[in-house]
Parts: sequence; C-alpha cells; structure tokens
Amino acid sequence: MLSTATLRVLLCLAEKDIDFELINVDLASGEHKKPHILSRSPYGQIPAFEDGEVKLFESRAISQYVSRKYAGKGTDLINNDPNKAAMESVWMEVESHKFDPVTMKLAWELCMKRFLFGQNGDEDVVNAEAKRLESVLDVYETRLAKSKYLGGDSFSLADLHHAPMVKFLMDTQMRQVFDARPFVSAWVADILNRPACVKVYGVPAY
Amino acid sequence: MLSTATLRVLLCLAEKDIDFELINVDLASGEHKKPHILSRSPYGQIPAFEDGEVKLFESRAISQYVSRKYAGKGTDLINNDPNKAAMESVWMEVESHKFDPVTMKLAWELCMKRFLFGQNGDEDVVNAEAKRLESVLDVYETRLAKSKYLGGDSFSLADLHHAPMVKFLMDTQMRQVFDARPFVSAWVADILNRPACVKVYGVPAY
Repeated sequence: MLSTATLRVLLCLAEKDIDFELINVDLASGEHKKPHILSRSPYGQIPAFEDGEVKLFESRAISQYVSRKYAGKGTDLINNDPNKAAMESVWMEVESHKFDPVTMKLAWELCMKRFLFGQNGDEDVVNAEAKRLESVLDVYETRLAKSKYLGGDSFSLADLHHAPMVKFLMDTQMRQVFDARPFVSAWVADILNRPACVKVYGVPAY
Repeated sequence: MLSTATLRVLLCLAEKDIDFELINVDLASGEHKKPHILSRSPYGQIPAFEDGEVKLFESRAISQYVSRKYAGKGTDLINNDPNKAAMESVWMEVESHKFDPVTMKLAWELCMKRFLFGQNGDEDVVNAEAKRLESVLDVYETRLAKSKYLGGDSFSLADLHHAPMVKFLMDTQMRQVFDARPFVSAWVADILNRPACVKVYGVPAY
C-alpha cells in the first residue's frame, strides 16, 4: 500500500511522462525516522524527492516543482495565464485546507487504525466527519456544475492533488457521499480514468 | 481584530506596495454567510478578493496571485529560479500542513473561545498542542540555522504566510516556545519588523 502523498507525486510524474526511480522506505521498521530520510525530509515523512541537486519534501511542493520545471513535457498541469493559474491555486488551497483535513481523519478512522493497531474506527467520529465532507463537497458540486475541472476548463494540479484520496475513499462507505453529487461523481470518474492514473494504479481506478 | 487570513493578504499587498480598498464584513451579524459573500467565497470565509475580473478566495492563493501578477512591483516574494522557488513552495506547504493546524487550535483555545463564547480554553488541549508546536519548530530551528529565511537567502511568501499567526502567538504564553529557539526567535524579529508589517499593524509588531 503506497501513501496518498507518494501517489500524488507518482501521478504527477506519470502525467508529465517523466522517468524516475522509486526507492521504498520501510515504514514498518521506522526507516522514515532514520538519519538518511530525516536529512531529506526533516519531519520524517514520505515522499522525499531528488532531481539532481534539488532535494524536496511535501508532495504538493514536489508536484508544483515538477510541473514548472518540466513545463514542456506531458500534460500541462499549471496554466500559463496568471489569472487562470490563480483559480487553480484557489482550488489547490481548498484541497489543502478543506478537503485534506476531513478526508485524512476519515482515512484514519476507516482504515489506518485497523491496519496499524487492529482497532475499529470510532463511528461517531466517522459520522461527524462524513457530515463535514458533505458540506465540503456541496461547494465542489456548485463549482463543477459550472466548470469541467476545479481550476477551470482543463485538468490541472488542483484536480490531481485530490486524486489519491478520492481513489482511496471510493473503496469505502464514503463513496456514497461522492456518488450523491452528480457533477462531483462525473469529475471523480474523469480524473480516476485518466491514462496516468490507470498507469499508476495498474487498473482503471474507478 | 482582523482575521489572520485577511492580515496575510494585507501584508502581501503592503510588501508589493499596491493600493487597495478594504471592505469590512460584519462577522458578528453573520454577513459572511450572506449571498453577496458566498458568491465570492463559497465557504463563507474571509477574505474574498477582487482585482478587475479576477475574483479569488483562500488567502494563500490570493498572495500567490498578487506576487506573480505584480512581479515587477515592491518586494519579490517568489523566486524566478524554479529550483529556488521549489524550496519556497516546500516551506509554504509546511506552513499549511504542519504550522497552521497546530497554531489554529492554539489560537482557538487561547483566545477565540473566550472572545466568541466567554469560555476558558482547555488546558490539556493547550499543553498537547504546545508540545506539537515545539516539534514543528524544532525543524524550523534546524532550517533557520542554515538559511536566513525559510525558503532561502531572501524573504518570500514562505515567511510571509507565517507572519500573522506568529504575531498573534507572540502576545500569548506560546511566545516562550519561539523565544526558546534562537534562530526561530531571530527570524520572528526579522519578519515582524519589516516595514510592510509595521505599516499593516501600525506599530512594530515584535
């Protein structure tokens, strides 16, 4: 099982058609807290990224670097027009500050607690966060009724940043929250069926 | 009292030396949930921003737009070199995903609960979040021992995005967490004494 943060970077590299070497970090043995990882990612989290002299951490910073540095290759993931790029930035921020906090809590309760500690999730927390997810996605539904993608007419990092967690939640009871919103549901199908996504997951993701 | 998100945008406009009109939104009467705000900021949060046809929300997206759109004015807040800009992005992401979640909880317990509901903060929560803030800032201390600013040699959006919450916490018991780390403390003094910061707050902020 790959981390959603690592999958975010892999999806970006696939969209940009860039070759890379993936080096596994053994989280089970605590390798991510060893010096060779901390020197690359000081909070001891994956992914850590290297491209020649450039050493980065934080998946969304890595995806922005790759999109700008390799602007001429593969899919354009950041608009060249500053006004259009601004709307992509808005929805990247919405992902970071609205979508991610709620869905990380849901992923913890629905899966990670059992995977790591053999515990069941807390049903009250799941119900409360599901309500929050509904409120978050109501705004997405309004946006996607007017715009094919979150940032505008074309697929961008704003959409890509969501894909790993959306894919994860599609295999949980939260799928119904997405499916209940037709424009959100069509967007999910679109972003998870992109060739880059199929390549990374090995199967159609939706 | 201005919101830290609004202050983030005001600091950016001051650094870029851009004139603007500030329109107050009466949060006490729930104006931020009325249609004229929701049409600009669909989660009903401030600030909402307009520049001609460009209408944005999310303070960090607004600051990035202003920095790119008005690249030739005032302080350069985003490096033109993509490798250097990448490190600024990393620390913008650290602010969003490490610093902001902890400090927003602290601001809630230390101030907003009393301001909004007349309740005292929960001491156990404050102590737990203070421990987390220490861990977050330990990594900042290591970074700032090697680099004058978070993104590199020059002040950037990575520093600016922190300033409003840092300023807020300097007036609380959390100040000691910053003061206990010499490089963090010097960085706080530097960013809060910038002319733009003094202009926005009306007094030296540190």
